Amino acid sequence: MGRSLNVAIVGATGMVGRELLRVLEQRRFPIAGLRLLASARSAGSLMRFDGREYTVEETTPESFAGADLVFISVSSQVSRELVPIAARAGAVVIDDSKAWRLEPDVPLVVPEVNGETLSGHRGIVATPNCEVAPLVLCLWPLHRRNPVRRVVVDTYQSVSGTGWAAVEELKEQTRAALEGREYRPQVYPHPIAFNVIPHVEPFGEDGYTREEAAIVHETRKIMGEPELAISATCVRVPVLVGHSLAVHVEFERPFDPHEARELLSQAPGVKVVDDPAAALYPTPLQAAGDDLCLVGRIRRDSSCERGLALWIACDNLRKGAAVNLVQIAEELLARNLI
Amino acid sequence: MGRSLNVAIVGATGMVGRELLRVLEQRRFPIAGLRLLASARSAGSLMRFDGREYTVEETTPESFAGADLVFISVSSQVSRELVPIAARAGAVVIDDSKAWRLEPDVPLVVPEVNGETLSGHRGIVATPNCEVAPLVLCLWPLHRRNPVRRVVVDTYQSVSGTGWAAVEELKEQTRAALEGREYRPQVYPHPIAFNVIPHVEPFGEDGYTREEAAIVHETRKIMGEPELAISATCVRVPVLVGHSLAVHVEFERPFDPHEARELLSQAPGVKVVDDPAAALYPTPLQAAGDDLCLVGRIRRDSSCERGLALWIACDNLRKGAAVNLVQIAEELLARNLI
Repeated sequence: MGRSLNVAIVGATGMVGRELLRVLEQRRFPIAGLRLLASARSAGSLMRFDGREYTVEETTPESFAGADLVFISVSSQVSRELVPIAARAGAVVIDDSKAWRLEPDVPLVVPEVNGETLSGHRGIVATPNCEVAPLVLCLWPLHRRNPVRRVVVDTYQSVSGTGWAAVEELKEQTRAALEGREYRPQVYPHPIAFNVIPHVEPFGEDGYTREEAAIVHETRKIMGEPELAISATCVRVPVLVGHSLAVHVEFERPFDPHEARELLSQAPGVKVVDDPAAALYPTPLQAAGDDLCLVGRIRRDSSCERGLALWIACDNLRKGAAVNLVQIAEELLARNLI
Repeated sequence: MGRSLNVAIVGATGMVGRELLRVLEQRRFPIAGLRLLASARSAGSLMRFDGREYTVEETTPESFAGADLVFISVSSQVSRELVPIAARAGAVVIDDSKAWRLEPDVPLVVPEVNGETLSGHRGIVATPNCEVAPLVLCLWPLHRRNPVRRVVVDTYQSVSGTGWAAVEELKEQTRAALEGREYRPQVYPHPIAFNVIPHVEPFGEDGYTREEAAIVHETRKIMGEPELAISATCVRVPVLVGHSLAVHVEFERPFDPHEARELLSQAPGVKVVDDPAAALYPTPLQAAGDDLCLVGRIRRDSSCERGLALWIACDNLRKGAAVNLVQIAEELLARNLI
């Protein structure tokens, strides 16, 4: 690649922000200069990157001067405000929020699937929801062989998808439950310790949550199939890191599970873990820390002769977020789009 | 009812056995005499029932003399041996294991759905798998209005479905994880603390577990639909009590979610908890201790115009096992079949 970039990270102290720093370091992303940005509350704190110490600064409209590339991992509301400012300052912005993903002129990218859509970017690129990246990574190689017609997904999502406060809540609430103490839920509307909650993001009029709608619309956009039939139930489970998905896919024609396993084992970004007799299948604990999306339990769907059932687990902070963000940046460099 | 029965309980010290005693007491089941039976290891321990103390006895072929009704909640292997002995001794046996459920001349009963099949019993009656009872309770009232054509189910099953050792393992392993200590899994093949495991019961040749196959075959038998298309992924989650199910149902014709909600709210054994705007939907923590099966998130399935999506939670030890066992006995009495 040769070229090094001036990089800014907004939301550097968040869960994804911290993971992003690790990924940039591990993948030796070519950084000329680095600015770590956050809210006023986090400003002044120190973070290490590549052996150096950086002071986190408060994000202001002037923070983006001179930046070639800005990663933004903050709430949708804040992202809506900051992304245009950073883009107008001349940077390419890669955004992790829900704010821009469905905008027609914003590429929504999983590089292994639709990296070529980056060529149309106008300064803003979005990374998908943390379940969507693993889902499309597994659907895409199958879809190219035998078109996907319908997808049913039920998720098992870890609390790190919500952020630090949720991780602390799960730990503290679990301690309290084990000791028989009361602990009033603060982050979630119900206790998450030793419980599951079928409520990820707010509900819409149609009874689906914003997270479930995101799976539908983002998967369609990334796969370039605007009518694809998808239904999801998104469920928060008491897991710290790693999202899992039970997936039932209907294809145009019957799909031999052996062929599907073979295709997935050659697919970029995917690792097949599928030897049930030896108790080998993906679990979130195993996926945590891995940059690949794990898939297993690949079998015929017993309710549909043109169907397959799959089980996926993926580190929601890495391939579900930080790794994909960095891969998008690498792809922009490789395609001379930055 | 008037009549009181001599009752024996095999597996009285197990998780379901203990719950069974509580349910018999709460529902004031007419008991003339009670024998509590278990393995040699548990013999001699004391248990309370209705203000009296009972000594647990070792189960022998002679244990069933004089019994009118025998509840058996032990492993399939032990059940295969004991059930015929108890039946030959003249008792009606209600069995909680997988051993007899699919035998053609053994009624497999959820009283709210197929109580009438008890009339054909030959001394042995089976109660279904702990996810099947809630599933058929919710499918049945819908099926009678508009036939079910296909069901996709993904489960979130608590560790109490496995038994005491699994409950202890979850608690101890969770403590260890919070304190950063090692804890080698003993009951499950992988850690269950802060993890989910898509592996409930052993795997078959087709890549489905015995639990997943049970959902298919038991649901078909109870609903009297031997060809019904069903696919399931069964997943163990770090929950102590309460199984949850994400269900996607395809019907013969489109189904208005309001009509489905209305039908379910009138269905026996079912409680509708469905006000997402107020964060009201079933959770396993809420279902634990309740004798009803909770259902909510009733909405159109966005992947199929003839489909509905549902979310169910149910106490696996109560309606999933002990309550249904006692209801079967009550139904036998009401129908003069014992």
